[in-house]
Formats: sequence, C-alpha cells, structure tokens
Amino acid sequence: MQHLQRLLAQVSFITEIDKLKTIQRQTLLLDGSRQENDAEHSWHLAMMVVVLAEYSNRPIDVARVVKMVLLHDVVEIDAGDTFAYDEGAHHDKEAREQTAADRLFGLLPKDQAMEMRALWDEFEAGETADAQFANAVDRMQPVLHNALTGGKQWLKHGVRHDQVLARCLPIRAGSEALWELLMEKVDAAVEAGQLLPSD
Amino acid sequence: MQHLQRLLAQVSFITEIDKLKTIQRQTLLLDGSRQENDAEHSWHLAMMVVVLAEYSNRPIDVARVVKMVLLHDVVEIDAGDTFAYDEGAHHDKEAREQTAADRLFGLLPKDQAMEMRALWDEFEAGETADAQFANAVDRMQPVLHNALTGGKQWLKHGVRHDQVLARCLPIRAGSEALWELLMEKVDAAVEAGQLLPSD
Repeated sequence: MQHLQRLLAQVSFITEIDKLKTIQRQTLLLDGSRQENDAEHSWHLAMMVVVLAEYSNRPIDVARVVKMVLLHDVVEIDAGDTFAYDEGAHHDKEAREQTAADRLFGLLPKDQAMEMRALWDEFEAGETADAQFANAVDRMQPVLHNALTGGKQWLKHGVRHDQVLARCLPIRAGSEALWELLMEKVDAAVEAGQLLPSD
Repeated sequence: MQHLQRLLAQVSFITEIDKLKTIQRQTLLLDGSRQENDAEHSWHLAMMVVVLAEYSNRPIDVARVVKMVLLHDVVEIDAGDTFAYDEGAHHDKEAREQTAADRLFGLLPKDQAMEMRALWDEFEAGETADAQFANAVDRMQPVLHNALTGGKQWLKHGVRHDQVLARCLPIRAGSEALWELLMEKVDAAVEAGQLLPSD
C-alpha cells in the first residue's frame, strides 16, 4: 500500500510536469516557425550536455548535469518564463521560483523531492563545475538560436550587444571554447545589423 | 584546427536536431490543447526514467537509459513519426529509420556517432535491461496520456483494447509494476467507452 502510494505520487509529478510543454519562451525554433517551449528547450540542452561535455573548463559528472538541465525549468510551470532581457520582471523572479519549487518537487516522495530540489538549488547557485556547465549551455542555446535566425527576437525586443555579452558571462565560466565560438557569432550579428550595438 | 572542426561538427548536429521539435506525434498534451512533438516527448521520457527507474524489473544504468530516450526519436527527423496503430506504414519503417540514423548520427565526430548509433541500435533491439526499460517508458507515456484525455485519440483512430494490450507488452518486459498500473487504466478506459473492446 505504501509502495502504491509512492508510485502514485511519482506518477502525479510526471503528469503535472506535462505543463512544461505549454510554457513558451522567447527563443525561436531554427526554422523560425514559432517560439519554443520549456520542455523541448530542456531536451535540447540535455543533448548539448551529452555532445559538448568535453568543452567544460572543469571535469563534470555528465549524468548529473543532464539531470540538472532536464529539471532546471520545471519551476516555470508556476512561475512562468522570465525573458532574459526583461529587467522589470527579474525583481521577484527568485521568490516566485522558490514557491514553485516547493510545490512542484513536493509532489514527489520525500527522498526524490530532496534530491531534485538540491540539484535545482545547485543549478541556481551556479558555483559547482556541474552547475556552471549546465548554466553555460542554458545561456548558449538562445544566443545560438538568435544568431541563426537573423537576430529577429533581439531586434524585436531592442536588445543591445552589451546586454548579450553580460548574459554570456556564465558561458565563459563553464566553457572557454563554447564562449569563444559564441562571441564570433555575436560579433558577426552586430556587423550584420542583427543586434543593436552597445550603448 | 582539427579541434575546431570537431566542435563545428558537434554544433551542426545540435542545430540539425532542432527539427525534432517539429515532428508531430498522435499523443495529446494532458490539457488536450494540441498534439505533442518528438522533442518534448523525449524530455518527458527522460524525466520518467529519472523518477521511475526503481520499478525496472532488472538493474539498469539510469544515465545510459536517459541518454537512450533522449536520442531514440532523432531518426524521425528524416523518417517521420509512424503512428503506433498504423500497420500499413510499419512495413518500411525500419529501412527508413536506418537511412536516417546513418545521416543524422553521421553529422557527429566518428567516436560520438558510433556511441549514439550503438545506443539507438540497442534501444531498437530491445533486449538489454537498459533498452527494455527505455522501451517501457516509451510505450507507457502515450497510453497514460490517452487514458487521461478521455481516450480521444484512441476513439479518433478506432483503436481496440487488444491492440493497446499488444503495444503494452514491452512495458511488462521492462517493469511489472508500471505494466500493472497501466492495465488498470486501460481496463477502466474500456469500461468508460473511451477505448473500443477487443475484436
């Protein structure tokens, strides 16, 4: 009976997180057809971790980092996606996400809730090697998509070069090699008028 | 230079697989709003593996199984999604998917291409403990979604109880506990007129 309750709690979490598929981000798909959602974004990051792990500045536990990126946006089911360059919405982002983490990870049996919450806290703190690489791919993917879709979302939101550079700092902390690659694409986007120059 | 070529090959794979977000499946989201796509489906399976691994009949390497479900549908970028109950389309499914695997995994540097191809081959063969659990969650998720959305897609396609039972056999091979839970939901769906009875 306790066994069944545990399984039902786990299934309730699995069904609840289906909602991540409805949380829309600003990033466009590479074919430009629509904005992506948090669930497919999280899948894309997990594949990036698997393929690009060798470029981490420091040794990482790939399996842990994959888990981290799979769950890093689950809190947005309650807290919503906060656009990277919307400074107004960032003031209460942390409080909203902490409340969301309590509810969502709290659907799981206690041992799993604690494990996932600890991984999410580690991701948010961004201090360990694992968290720094997870944050690096999370920052890299939207920049890559913006650069490969003609800067459409940058121009739409009036984003400037210096703002993108500031967003890219965690990429450098996680991976010099990925940061260098991105910087070339960002510079080219400014040259091409697809990203506004710095103030 | 060789280093840069390797990175560029990896990034070309990462950008190519963005197309998985446009491959539509028959399964509805749990809110019924639309059909899901392969990328978000793959994310959902990876979370299921993380949360439900303890129910595998045999010991598994969770990190390997997560990787397996993350990449298991990548071939559908070229081969398309074949609806589970479309017997006509299944005759050339394997050939289409083999060609797709050659092209898509072939974008990666050779060592990674071989590793991913081997994982995908293992998933398709469905014989190891890892592959059986990966197949179990892949079969479980759509049945769960159909059962929780009033059987709408089952009724739309005239799917019968015996067809669902046949599709669910790999769940039993991977996990008796998950299979039992699903069978209750499937039986209830027949009772409720949300799934046609067996012939």
